[in-house]
Amino acid sequence: MDFNAVYHRANDNYCYPLNENQLIINIKTGYDVKYVNIVQGDPFKSGILGGGENWTGESVNIPYKKRLKNQLWWTTTVEPEYKRLKYYFELITEKEKWYYFEDGFVSEEQMNLEGRSRQCFVFPWMNPGDIPVTPAWVNDTIWYQIFPERFCNGDVSLNTEEMLSWRDKGSVRNDEFFGGDIQGIIDKLDYLKELGISGLYLTPINESPSSHKYDTTDYKRIDPHFGTEETFMRLVKEAHERGIRIMLDGVFNHCGKYFAPWKDVVKRGKESEYYDWFMINEWPFEHSKGAAASGQYYSFAFFDDMPKLNTNNVKVREYLLEVCEMWVKKYHVDGIRLDVANEISHVFCKELRTRMKAIKPDIYILGEIWHDAMPWLRGDEFDAVMNYPLGESIKDFWVDKGLTKEDFEYTINRCYTGYMQQTNDVLFNLLDSHDTKRLRSEVKNLDEYFQQLAVLFTMPGSPCIYYGTEIAMEGGHDPDCRRCMPWESIEAEEFKDRMEIIRQLIHLRKEEPLLRNRNFHFPNKISSPRIIEFLKIEWEDKYVEVIINCEEEDIEISRKGRVLFERHYIDNILLKNGILIRKIEN
Amino acid sequence: MDFNAVYHRANDNYCYPLNENQLIINIKTGYDVKYVNIVQGDPFKSGILGGGENWTGESVNIPYKKRLKNQLWWTTTVEPEYKRLKYYFELITEKEKWYYFEDGFVSEEQMNLEGRSRQCFVFPWMNPGDIPVTPAWVNDTIWYQIFPERFCNGDVSLNTEEMLSWRDKGSVRNDEFFGGDIQGIIDKLDYLKELGISGLYLTPINESPSSHKYDTTDYKRIDPHFGTEETFMRLVKEAHERGIRIMLDGVFNHCGKYFAPWKDVVKRGKESEYYDWFMINEWPFEHSKGAAASGQYYSFAFFDDMPKLNTNNVKVREYLLEVCEMWVKKYHVDGIRLDVANEISHVFCKELRTRMKAIKPDIYILGEIWHDAMPWLRGDEFDAVMNYPLGESIKDFWVDKGLTKEDFEYTINRCYTGYMQQTNDVLFNLLDSHDTKRLRSEVKNLDEYFQQLAVLFTMPGSPCIYYGTEIAMEGGHDPDCRRCMPWESIEAEEFKDRMEIIRQLIHLRKEEPLLRNRNFHFPNKISSPRIIEFLKIEWEDKYVEVIINCEEEDIEISRKGRVLFERHYIDNILLKNGILIRKIEN
Repeated sequence: MDFNAVYHRANDNYCYPLNENQLIINIKTGYDVKYVNIVQGDPFKSGILGGGENWTGESVNIPYKKRLKNQLWWTTTVEPEYKRLKYYFELITEKEKWYYFEDGFVSEEQMNLEGRSRQCFVFPWMNPGDIPVTPAWVNDTIWYQIFPERFCNGDVSLNTEEMLSWRDKGSVRNDEFFGGDIQGIIDKLDYLKELGISGLYLTPINESPSSHKYDTTDYKRIDPHFGTEETFMRLVKEAHERGIRIMLDGVFNHCGKYFAPWKDVVKRGKESEYYDWFMINEWPFEHSKGAAASGQYYSFAFFDDMPKLNTNNVKVREYLLEVCEMWVKKYHVDGIRLDVANEISHVFCKELRTRMKAIKPDIYILGEIWHDAMPWLRGDEFDAVMNYPLGESIKDFWVDKGLTKEDFEYTINRCYTGYMQQTNDVLFNLLDSHDTKRLRSEVKNLDEYFQQLAVLFTMPGSPCIYYGTEIAMEGGHDPDCRRCMPWESIEAEEFKDRMEIIRQLIHLRKEEPLLRNRNFHFPNKISSPRIIEFLKIEWEDKYVEVIINCEEEDIEISRKGRVLFERHYIDNILLKNGILIRKIEN
Repeated sequence: MDFNAVYHRANDNYCYPLNENQLIINIKTGYDVKYVNIVQGDPFKSGILGGGENWTGESVNIPYKKRLKNQLWWTTTVEPEYKRLKYYFELITEKEKWYYFEDGFVSEEQMNLEGRSRQCFVFPWMNPGDIPVTPAWVNDTIWYQIFPERFCNGDVSLNTEEMLSWRDKGSVRNDEFFGGDIQGIIDKLDYLKELGISGLYLTPINESPSSHKYDTTDYKRIDPHFGTEETFMRLVKEAHERGIRIMLDGVFNHCGKYFAPWKDVVKRGKESEYYDWFMINEWPFEHSKGAAASGQYYSFAFFDDMPKLNTNNVKVREYLLEVCEMWVKKYHVDGIRLDVANEISHVFCKELRTRMKAIKPDIYILGEIWHDAMPWLRGDEFDAVMNYPLGESIKDFWVDKGLTKEDFEYTINRCYTGYMQQTNDVLFNLLDSHDTKRLRSEVKNLDEYFQQLAVLFTMPGSPCIYYGTEIAMEGGHDPDCRRCMPWESIEAEEFKDRMEIIRQLIHLRKEEPLLRNRNFHFPNKISSPRIIEFLKIEWEDKYVEVIINCEEEDIEISRKGRVLFERHYIDNILLKNGILIRKIEN
């Protein structure tokens, strides 16, 4: 047996309570393992305390598995009668049978050796207070990310002289201002509702000197160029009336150079009462070009004007948590996205969750983390993270034409086996954002563009499109991905067609629960290596089939079930670059 | 390459800050991997935000490794200049070179493919508030576990009529009482100090009807048969004066049948203000034989008289935390051991740590967990757990004569690669307790007995001996392992010899820092398969060598260095069953 391929640990994504009754258990093995049984039972039902030499369990087959690149992922759900479970595994290849315990592999012969310890896996107790719960509404939500300065100028009275006239076409710089504001978002709420959007994620709106506003001046004030507190509260109210939720962007890893406590520290040095609000390594220090890189103080990346906030300091935590409490209590926001979430202290993240959920139990707490985020997703910090790994996995398939449908299967399965299922349900899925190239600028043509979006809209989690995605806006890396939304030409025929496709995908996802649902698998029925096919499935006789032709050739796909969405599917032929989504009910 | 053997995740025991400056990174590979390099650097030093397509790091060889059963464990320490690290690995076999990223393996050829994502591992920021810190004194401590009812009767005025006269020999039952008390422990402090003990772990001392007192009646009262609050505070004072620390046993998973809130619930049902202090599933319920097993309410194991406390309830947490605060503030205890720690809610464990460390930053919080305890050892709950897996691993070698020195190496390495190093330093190492057979009753003879203790005393962590270990007391499973300490015959010659050996091992560990230190390795110089040999090592030219002969034959071991401890080592011959511990300084 391929011993090295076997992995299980009784925690994190390998063993966790899905809810108060169900315990999910996953184990990885090599491809050589043909059957896996879990031998499980109550730790105290037979045998003695702790040692458990006489303990016996019931052997139950694990039928479900997913294929990963080199390993199989076996998954089962157990309902322990007394909220606790003791278990080990039986692994069966064509030739051998091994028992897998916490302390390793045991042969059939060794199983009979008296006095030898058997260290079983244990999930000791499913305490309600520890069960990771994520907000139910998020899985039903279609997000739309807005970069307010560039989305819509709704109140020209807020314009200053430095503002340029709206640039419906062409590139922009980060130091250019066009007057996008909160009133502009309010003005477009009907447009967004009509598109099918049910959640808005706004990049920061607090006072700041920049166009992106990730360098906060005042956490308690709306940027005056965007509007007032009253305007924002009106946005929330109007959005809620249309069934659209609002998520704000919390920039708590660092502040901007005009943040009052930072200014005080720059001025008064260690005498400032805020001297320990930042991460300053040398006194006196200079706030000048290169100071952050020189290590005098820590900042975000190496930006001298984005000094890091010290969230290890209880006073800083208290200050920022009061800000968040105001957002939730007074502004009634539905979600908080944490910028550079992985650099903030876990202590802060834990307190944030406790305090926000106490006010609004179903608030959505989302972390900006680009890499494996398990440590933040154990149920006591974030509900989810921005699912960049999924986005990358999807995009890679079109970048690297050498990848096969199996590679696609492996990478998608990897994305959905790394966290708990309740996390998967609310992962913030995206293909682009204000921090990446726009998807349209990464693909060759609109066919590839819509193919990738079709995958996004059929994956478990909560999809987000970046403003302008509905018209396939172009844009390279920051700042080019932050162009003005071209409202003047929005009625153009080419835009209308694109928008219609996006609207269809959105409505499809909203109408068909199977598309939002967490269960999927790859049937591998079509032999062509670059035809993606997967099923969103609840029961064997009822599923949605997604087929995406990335071959250089057309392919015959016989009619079956009810077509939910099609593109380039003519007379049973799915043309190259085509998409077919259909529902089968037997 | 054996892809399946490779495992790394940027958290838990695989990537963590040892302190504010050092980040430890571990990776598992197969035996086929000959070299591992970590390519590491600052995430923002080169390349762009997030995507990092242009990011490059510095390739540094990882020289240190440990052998596990089927895999190699490579370990390195990095000191990131800006508290953050981005990295991937280069894995080199005799034939191949592969790059290992968070999203999988990449070939040399694929590394050059433009636009393809590279998901590096990231440790985003070493926040001081999140760095797991364990109390420094614990590694220097020699623990002695006392079961107070059976250790020493120091105050006969506390005896009741039901008490039997001290039984210096022979078995006991759990429902027999002998009058052991706190004064008895005070009386023996000099004896313990002379033995070299520097920490006492007392099983529960709060009021309870049983001899073991794991069924608490009153958490705020010392059991009157053990003494008063005053007696206990005197014990702490007298112990501290002798350099002996005190750890209490917190039984917070469940209470006893006379606990007032439970009595109130039994009497008044759902009308009781304590109705949600327990885990009751049916109203009305009966507190009668079999009630727990029937699922009417949850209890410890299936003991009807040990109803589970609901530590998901903030009121219960508050009550128990006030008890703990009293122990620390008023009694000045140095440690708290949590009984059935794995079944208590994590919420409680986290609050316990925060509040106890706020009062006494170096208090030792120890959990009774018999299995892999990573979820409790991430720095925000316990400092350590009772290291039963180590005890089992040691004992197994003598039980299963088919195990070789390599098996021993693998299992010991497994025990010390599962947690962070700061946890390893303070693991509570034991071979027996009130919950197991006594070691003496698990081995064939005193030779094997002392061999196993010699291993215990040379391992990283903090060793604990159960009362009576110094005289090799016998005892089967509970209740037989809870016999009375035979003070009348303690001066017997045979006891004196045994005690002298234990005293030597204790003093050796106290005098030689290398024995307490976390670094060890297995040189495999002696070819005999059942001769254990390992080095406790700081630098290559200064180490302690431990050699334990478990062969059926004597073996020649030439003289070298300074002998620290020897048993059955005569004229360069380590007899079968012998022990040799010596220090080499070149």
